[in-house]
Amino acid sequence: MVKEKEQIPNKEKKLLVGVIWNFSAELKLILMAFLVLCTLATLLPFIPSSFSLSASDFRFCISRFSSAVPVNTTTTTTTKPVGELPEKTTKPATELDRVLDNGVIKRSFTAYGSAAYNFVSMSAYRGGVNSFAVIGLSSKPLHVYGHPSYRCEWVPLDPTQDPISTDGVKILTDWGYGRIYTTVVVNCTFQTISTVNPENSGGNLILHATTGDPDRNVTDSIPVLTESPNSVDFELYNSTKQKYDYLYCGSSLYGNLSPQRVREWIAYHARFLGEKSHFVLHDAGGVQEEVFEVLRPWIELGRVTVHDIRDQERFDGYYHNQFMVVNDCLHRYRFEAKWIFFFDVDEFIYVPPKKTISSVMESLEEYSQFTIEQMPMSSQLCFSGDGPARTYRKWGFEKLAYRDVKKVARRDRKYAVQPRNVYATGVHMSQNLQGKTYHKAEGKIRYFHYHGSISQRREPCRHLFNGTRIVFDNSPYVLDTTMRDIGLAVKTFEIRTIGDRLLRTRQ
Amino acid sequence: MVKEKEQIPNKEKKLLVGVIWNFSAELKLILMAFLVLCTLATLLPFIPSSFSLSASDFRFCISRFSSAVPVNTTTTTTTKPVGELPEKTTKPATELDRVLDNGVIKRSFTAYGSAAYNFVSMSAYRGGVNSFAVIGLSSKPLHVYGHPSYRCEWVPLDPTQDPISTDGVKILTDWGYGRIYTTVVVNCTFQTISTVNPENSGGNLILHATTGDPDRNVTDSIPVLTESPNSVDFELYNSTKQKYDYLYCGSSLYGNLSPQRVREWIAYHARFLGEKSHFVLHDAGGVQEEVFEVLRPWIELGRVTVHDIRDQERFDGYYHNQFMVVNDCLHRYRFEAKWIFFFDVDEFIYVPPKKTISSVMESLEEYSQFTIEQMPMSSQLCFSGDGPARTYRKWGFEKLAYRDVKKVARRDRKYAVQPRNVYATGVHMSQNLQGKTYHKAEGKIRYFHYHGSISQRREPCRHLFNGTRIVFDNSPYVLDTTMRDIGLAVKTFEIRTIGDRLLRTRQ
Repeated sequence: MVKEKEQIPNKEKKLLVGVIWNFSAELKLILMAFLVLCTLATLLPFIPSSFSLSASDFRFCISRFSSAVPVNTTTTTTTKPVGELPEKTTKPATELDRVLDNGVIKRSFTAYGSAAYNFVSMSAYRGGVNSFAVIGLSSKPLHVYGHPSYRCEWVPLDPTQDPISTDGVKILTDWGYGRIYTTVVVNCTFQTISTVNPENSGGNLILHATTGDPDRNVTDSIPVLTESPNSVDFELYNSTKQKYDYLYCGSSLYGNLSPQRVREWIAYHARFLGEKSHFVLHDAGGVQEEVFEVLRPWIELGRVTVHDIRDQERFDGYYHNQFMVVNDCLHRYRFEAKWIFFFDVDEFIYVPPKKTISSVMESLEEYSQFTIEQMPMSSQLCFSGDGPARTYRKWGFEKLAYRDVKKVARRDRKYAVQPRNVYATGVHMSQNLQGKTYHKAEGKIRYFHYHGSISQRREPCRHLFNGTRIVFDNSPYVLDTTMRDIGLAVKTFEIRTIGDRLLRTRQ
Repeated sequence: MVKEKEQIPNKEKKLLVGVIWNFSAELKLILMAFLVLCTLATLLPFIPSSFSLSASDFRFCISRFSSAVPVNTTTTTTTKPVGELPEKTTKPATELDRVLDNGVIKRSFTAYGSAAYNFVSMSAYRGGVNSFAVIGLSSKPLHVYGHPSYRCEWVPLDPTQDPISTDGVKILTDWGYGRIYTTVVVNCTFQTISTVNPENSGGNLILHATTGDPDRNVTDSIPVLTESPNSVDFELYNSTKQKYDYLYCGSSLYGNLSPQRVREWIAYHARFLGEKSHFVLHDAGGVQEEVFEVLRPWIELGRVTVHDIRDQERFDGYYHNQFMVVNDCLHRYRFEAKWIFFFDVDEFIYVPPKKTISSVMESLEEYSQFTIEQMPMSSQLCFSGDGPARTYRKWGFEKLAYRDVKKVARRDRKYAVQPRNVYATGVHMSQNLQGKTYHKAEGKIRYFHYHGSISQRREPCRHLFNGTRIVFDNSPYVLDTTMRDIGLAVKTFEIRTIGDRLLRTRQ
């Protein structure tokens, strides 16, 4: 039943595994090895006939080496060599099974290839004079079932200065939603010293990401941030003045968005949040050409910044890696805004008539975060007070005037934070911050939610009504003209600010 | 806010990516490359001082190459090279971000390392004259969210014969339970031909495992089975005679198992299933020395086979990869047994007094599978009919005589199959088979379940009772002496079969 074969003794393997945790450099020989590999990789594509392996294999090897060289970091295997294959590969894995002296069949398992990266780096930012935040993706089940860990190393450019290290504190922000990848924010705070890079002489921040896997406990050393000499403005981290009062961090924009709805949303909020506000939008494929055209005037005015994050689609995370994107935005603009808002482009923030956004925000200043309750609006029932023809010409938030009175408002909250107090953020609120969170601001600030209206490129009105109280599909709605009444002011503001460039925008 | 840097042009990369889907061989140069790498890998450990990379990195590269060479298969990258790192790695990832002409910030994402293998090969078996089953593990989220695929290739040893290929049908058997890894059974059926390896001249089965990942659509080519010339007994696949009537495939054994309980279980079932039965146990760390001692006499008699599967612990799957193990067992012994049973070592199969196991199994012959209902027994309440002193000396299934009458029996079924009709199996039943499944065998066959009794190394009796109906912890129990009454016969059978070697076995 069982083939008895002796396993090939592998002294060499043991010797190789012995070379671990070495830090000093012997660059000469490694560069030689590197040169040989480079030569091979360069020659490969020019050879007319083919091989039983792809050139990318070589490149993979090379990139592993080269990434480690410049910063003298180490890729360390503490258990078994990666990809432990039989010495003679004509023997398939099953033949390595062997019968022990006591009759037991020793089974072997052979691992091939790779299904997920250990870490996908998006960005790293200073979080203060002695701390940094690194934002990226990592394998979701590794974080659910494994024990990955992070260590941060600061390597000064000046070779006479010693590198310093600290444990990275990982923050998982996905509320259980990850797919192949999940978002990781690593906080690197060097508590033993008052300032990292105190002489502003430059250096590199290296993230050492260890899988903690029983089989391949590999540490990848990742250069995440370079500070060139005299590039850090340390004043920034003590200043109480911010470039913006209010910054909007948008989630991943995806799908076939309506240019007209986006136009309306930007015009409304540019007016509502005032001149010292700024809008950061993240294009995961949703900012198609016509959508970009409605953003262009605002980009030119410096009111809107678009980040093209389409490349993150290579990594399958929850909702186009929205958790990574909002965390990047938080840390990127942490010292540029007094408040950062997190909500969606089918949502409209609103304060009651006798209040202004600045009076409301001042009254909430003692809180690091507050959540915002929604007013659920229908995305298909329109008020036709002016007759059908004029209704269709109205803006979305003017005509979609029926509010769903049955929906529980609490279930879908959005929020704003004072970013200096926040270490990481989620979608419905941040759970990693210092200071107080306020959940009862509904008398001061709310948002109107036209769910799904943004992602359809057609006239939203499916049914026209005139009544103040209606029932549709067994759900009761009431007429709410709060937003409708602001329409004219918003349109006037848009023309005054960017001219008539967007008048012909289509649904 | 944004650093403007030109992305480094990478013509070389494009050229390298061009080398794809090549099948013919130019062994000479690849062997040369291989030799150079080998030399480097061999030299590395003997150099006294250290490097900024581990020797295992080289080994990883080498193993990737060497695995592909002997069978002339290709590791193919259809999109981007694996581990796409910046060309000059002193530049961190964030500096690759750049501002496009239209003002948009193009963000980049840089991936490092590996968190999970694409495929971990355990075994491959012939499933007939033109089919094979490959058993292994693969990344769980890859299978939940991605689109991995498999292709099977038969490469005859005779170079004048052409290789043949077929799509592999993957079967996932984990009932939603995977962790970092999940179990995959790939069925390779070559439908276009009547027989694979018809002249018995030998060949290799290669599994091409493609991740289908948008970022790294890599195909790993894995040699899973070698048939040497004249090694296949084709008669086996048409024969209706089997070596065993009943084969037991055990799940992964783990933890601190009680030698005495294992002794009792083996003696009971060796008698119950008769001489033409065989027991396959899987040691995932649970068959410690004392446990092995109670198995040794049965191993020597050829009644028990132990597979040491401790190495699978390197790969984090559900319950010590039990789904992989039972599928390996199914396919390994598929043509050696008429029936294969799947249940646990704290469970005792039982047929009513006037029936025998063979009469029951004959009556179920029309079914490919039947499930077995449990009789839930207490694992701590003992019947002390003979007084405490004599009770403690009894075997577990003699003294643990109180049956839980409240528990719903249906929830935990075990089963038996006629393996030739089964393509893959689960833990509570197979869902991949041809033929009928029978769920109403409770009048013919059941199992007594002493939940958890196997994994404690102390006297199981916590409380002694004499009554026929008792209540403990608000649950009602009845005295059930069915198993108790068989005790003497089992003990006699054990002594007659293997002598008194196990008399001093401890709890």
